[in-house]
Amino acid sequence: MRRVTILGTGLIGGSMARGLRAAGGWTLHGVDTAAPARVAAEASGVFHALTMPETLGPEDVIVLAMPTAAAAAVLPTLAPALAAGATVTDVASVKGPLAEALGALPSALRRQVVLGHPIAGSERSGMAASDGALFQGRRVVLTPLGDTAPEALGKVEQIWSALGAEIETLSVEAHDAVLARTSHLPHLLAFALVDALGADPHREAIFRLVAGGFRDFTRIAGSDPTMWSQIFTTNGPALLEALDRFEATLRTFRGAIAAEDGAALFEAIARARATRDAALTESYGEGHDAP
Amino acid sequence: MRRVTILGTGLIGGSMARGLRAAGGWTLHGVDTAAPARVAAEASGVFHALTMPETLGPEDVIVLAMPTAAAAAVLPTLAPALAAGATVTDVASVKGPLAEALGALPSALRRQVVLGHPIAGSERSGMAASDGALFQGRRVVLTPLGDTAPEALGKVEQIWSALGAEIETLSVEAHDAVLARTSHLPHLLAFALVDALGADPHREAIFRLVAGGFRDFTRIAGSDPTMWSQIFTTNGPALLEALDRFEATLRTFRGAIAAEDGAALFEAIARARATRDAALTESYGEGHDAP
Repeated sequence: MRRVTILGTGLIGGSMARGLRAAGGWTLHGVDTAAPARVAAEASGVFHALTMPETLGPEDVIVLAMPTAAAAAVLPTLAPALAAGATVTDVASVKGPLAEALGALPSALRRQVVLGHPIAGSERSGMAASDGALFQGRRVVLTPLGDTAPEALGKVEQIWSALGAEIETLSVEAHDAVLARTSHLPHLLAFALVDALGADPHREAIFRLVAGGFRDFTRIAGSDPTMWSQIFTTNGPALLEALDRFEATLRTFRGAIAAEDGAALFEAIARARATRDAALTESYGEGHDAP
Repeated sequence: MRRVTILGTGLIGGSMARGLRAAGGWTLHGVDTAAPARVAAEASGVFHALTMPETLGPEDVIVLAMPTAAAAAVLPTLAPALAAGATVTDVASVKGPLAEALGALPSALRRQVVLGHPIAGSERSGMAASDGALFQGRRVVLTPLGDTAPEALGKVEQIWSALGAEIETLSVEAHDAVLARTSHLPHLLAFALVDALGADPHREAIFRLVAGGFRDFTRIAGSDPTMWSQIFTTNGPALLEALDRFEATLRTFRGAIAAEDGAALFEAIARARATRDAALTESYGEGHDAP
């Protein structure tokens, strides 16, 4: 039996545990510092134990299932586990600060750390919202460094394969730049739009008349403020660069609107439609718009 | 039998015809200048006739089921119908240019024109996508002017009630300002975001890794370029004002990200979440997040 110790039994950690339990062949430990999370983890019956294993070895994988800042703080404390031969991985949304935190570990141990990020989630959180199929058919991005040990990478890939995820490899920098564009910037725009409407003089009529598109567009504005304020601060430089690019495009649209240049607007909108279609076909396959 | 003549047998006109046919008690004429639309309207079997009635009177309502600019161009040609006692209404997304076009009609006839806009639609278009239940439980905004005849308003309200819509009344200016914020600006942001990503150096990885939120957020970027380039140009001033307000809020977020001010970001995101929740509860009722 391979052993996986999941530090953080929230939505992602809980979903990994459920999926591995269903796959079979894994001994699962779950550890959480919050008492309610421990109660929920115990009640779920998914974990074999709710403590850190007392001795660790090469058969162990430790998963940091927590946000970037917390994972970066925990990483140096895992030096003894790494020295005993364990592999360490994580699931956080921003990889740059974790790559930096690796600098606090001896280089011989660093090799056993594989940074990763599953592109899956929910507006809901906690073990209660966890789902063993959450990663089925979804991408997981691994960001191995030049000196990452192939055996450690292989062990982490085995976990994600068991969970049904498709594995992609990117550099730390590319991961943070891409996620800034596909996830962090859309969240930022949705939060800013809704926040602006809340302070608008037409607020009352706006609330009565929110259209269908608004609902889709702002669904992500219902996301957790703690998690998202951390993502925005930990991925600040990449997010601001993505925002700069977006604003340059938005200025082009603004200019065409101000000039009443219908032809330029038609061209830009048609191009956006074709781009979206290409992106969703690439990511989800044909028929992506089926319900 | 009350008679409704729908000029434009696309998604909205077709859906109105289907809904009124299902409600019963209406004679329905459908007129479209495009041959394929006429073929589809005939094939649907929904209309009693596909020509303009030869004589019109007080029992007639004419619906301009076409975009703002086309409706504004058609309006003056309906002077004889108005003189015969018919009521005229429309469904276009921007009301300002239509209120202006009313100036081309004698004031005695203007009273029989009731401007309106159902807050319902689809990314799909045409009679083939039409749905008699499209307006059920959705808002329709009527923007009567000071001199609009109460009898004309009553006839138009009767149509929307038969279609199951909830009737709201706003001034022309408030309508255009509110729709700029709840519909036109979200579309603009989605188009600009997707267009920016299409030109991004990370485009290839972005396409492979578009996350769930991106799909929701950019669904409206799949909308029709002809329709949306027209909406952006016809509602330019209100849209640019809404964009100014949005960008002011976005600058506040940008400042907090640049300053790594997690507390300010938490507060703004939590406020946005509460605002979205209040808006959807107001508009859709409790339990709005149920599937």
